[in-house]
Amino acid sequence: MTTKHKAGYYKGSKSFTLDAAETVSPGAGEVAIKVAYCGICGTDMHVFHGNMDARVGHNRVLGHEMSGTVAALGDGVDGFSVGQKVTVRPLSHCGKCPACLAGHEHICHNLKFLGLDTDGAMQEVWTVPAFTVHTLPDDMPMDHAALVEPVAVACHDVRLSELTKGEDVVVIGGGPIGMLVALVARDAGGKVIVSEVNPNRLAIAGALGFATINPVEQDLSAEVLSATNGKGADVVFEVSGTQKGVDAMTAVAATRARIVMVAIHATKPQIDLFQFFWRELQLIGARVYEPVDYEKAIALVASGAMSADTIITDISPLSEIQGAFESLDTNPTAMKSLIKVS
Amino acid sequence: MTTKHKAGYYKGSKSFTLDAAETVSPGAGEVAIKVAYCGICGTDMHVFHGNMDARVGHNRVLGHEMSGTVAALGDGVDGFSVGQKVTVRPLSHCGKCPACLAGHEHICHNLKFLGLDTDGAMQEVWTVPAFTVHTLPDDMPMDHAALVEPVAVACHDVRLSELTKGEDVVVIGGGPIGMLVALVARDAGGKVIVSEVNPNRLAIAGALGFATINPVEQDLSAEVLSATNGKGADVVFEVSGTQKGVDAMTAVAATRARIVMVAIHATKPQIDLFQFFWRELQLIGARVYEPVDYEKAIALVASGAMSADTIITDISPLSEIQGAFESLDTNPTAMKSLIKVS
Repeated sequence: MTTKHKAGYYKGSKSFTLDAAETVSPGAGEVAIKVAYCGICGTDMHVFHGNMDARVGHNRVLGHEMSGTVAALGDGVDGFSVGQKVTVRPLSHCGKCPACLAGHEHICHNLKFLGLDTDGAMQEVWTVPAFTVHTLPDDMPMDHAALVEPVAVACHDVRLSELTKGEDVVVIGGGPIGMLVALVARDAGGKVIVSEVNPNRLAIAGALGFATINPVEQDLSAEVLSATNGKGADVVFEVSGTQKGVDAMTAVAATRARIVMVAIHATKPQIDLFQFFWRELQLIGARVYEPVDYEKAIALVASGAMSADTIITDISPLSEIQGAFESLDTNPTAMKSLIKVS
Repeated sequence: MTTKHKAGYYKGSKSFTLDAAETVSPGAGEVAIKVAYCGICGTDMHVFHGNMDARVGHNRVLGHEMSGTVAALGDGVDGFSVGQKVTVRPLSHCGKCPACLAGHEHICHNLKFLGLDTDGAMQEVWTVPAFTVHTLPDDMPMDHAALVEPVAVACHDVRLSELTKGEDVVVIGGGPIGMLVALVARDAGGKVIVSEVNPNRLAIAGALGFATINPVEQDLSAEVLSATNGKGADVVFEVSGTQKGVDAMTAVAATRARIVMVAIHATKPQIDLFQFFWRELQLIGARVYEPVDYEKAIALVASGAMSADTIITDISPLSEIQGAFESLDTNPTAMKSLIKVS
């Protein structure tokens, strides 16, 4: 008997169709998950805008920021039980390249990203390799649990920064990832300033208790120097992906500051390398996450420190996937938008 | 009674004059040094070319890569004896700024560099604060000892790179500092490739036993990938100060590579920040040296690992200071040029 489930397919040109997908039993080493919620990532928006068609094609189920419950286990899978709450670390590595051999499997040369290079979680049943599945506390709300993936990005960024308690932090860019970086950095003991130009996002940052600066209205580096007695920020997260953000990241940095490159810069911005020399700055590239970041993210979401109900601004049913994506292009008050899949 | 000594004064417009300077007894906390040799640094060449007149003026004795013997001690100075071989770490810090308070006195916000911001060692007697003086082994040849300062730069660069034995290293730029970085990196166990476009410098690198690549004639990144089984370089030193060098530094880097920014980039080059994200690269700014780097440099020069007789290509008496500087503009075979001061 063949069963089917609903899935949202990206069909190119800013369009999705809802269709029935065949529900296949999980193969050996796989887990089938009944998806509860799935967040819309900035990368998903890039796909929606047609910028990643060469990679994802025109018949792809997106989605990798998800929560769900175990629906079925394939042969040889143990450690999970049907009905258990889980989330997925959507990375599949080759195990053979120099990065994998050096223990950096999350930046595997041949990395497959589930939900981009394979079908993702914007469907009622998602089947994935068991090694990607993390279990969640029984009492974690499933909408909050959909934040684990982006929180894990923030945990990775903050971990690589080696932030210590009491250090001054500037987050450049207060979108969903920047806001989560700010929250994780504060949890780690950082004194955090958020720089952002969108008034709605500034208001959310303020509501979350952060000092905020609008660099269009204020002199960012002067404000940061003033707030730090002339020292500058010990840790800077560049999350804006803009030339102005790259200019700002060196301008606000203290001597020996660590600057974490979170944003994806598609072009090659100009960078003040003289300041790297003069002040012995460090730039630290950070991409996705490792298992330890996922465990940290699960603990942080469970603790309430991620203010999930403030970060999650919109929830739409899977049947309205088209509108959910369109809305993110036009709604300036949106922070994190979730699809309620089932 | 006033005594005098010979000094070479930079007078602006690519000109030096030799004049008599008054020999002042060292003040409290100072040491007077009879200068033996003084190297010509790339920074001194910038001064010669008129690029630093606003900072150094038109009546400045240059020189900070020096060796000498103690001539006299000021009040309150102990730990030295007259006649003892010494060199100088030419940095004077304020002790009060955020960098000093954080223990990074070498990148003091108000750092004075002796020989630029004060008169330097291209004079027969040089008087400096005692805290800048390092003693040398009795049997160290004094011309070799003039390399301690640039070797300390290289030691600082390699220390900050956290290079470990067996790692693959690319040095971009085989001038005096690049060559010393290559030598220090090899001493630390690195497998070093030197990228350089000047055939004379390539020949010196080859004579010192390094693998070499001329990126004008060969595909640098392809050669590095080939030499490292597709992995790339674990550590990259950018010593060229060029846009091409900045392009190359990301192109040759392995995942999680550390790139040390040794060069002084006066303009803001374009940088492939995407690769920093994608491969989790790190960029580490490195400036001058700390006391531990000086002690390491003295030990390395003493050990013979710096191949001082190959690195030192030219020695001129102080009376020919004008010609020594002019020659560095026109002599393509020069590596390190020393002034024999007394």
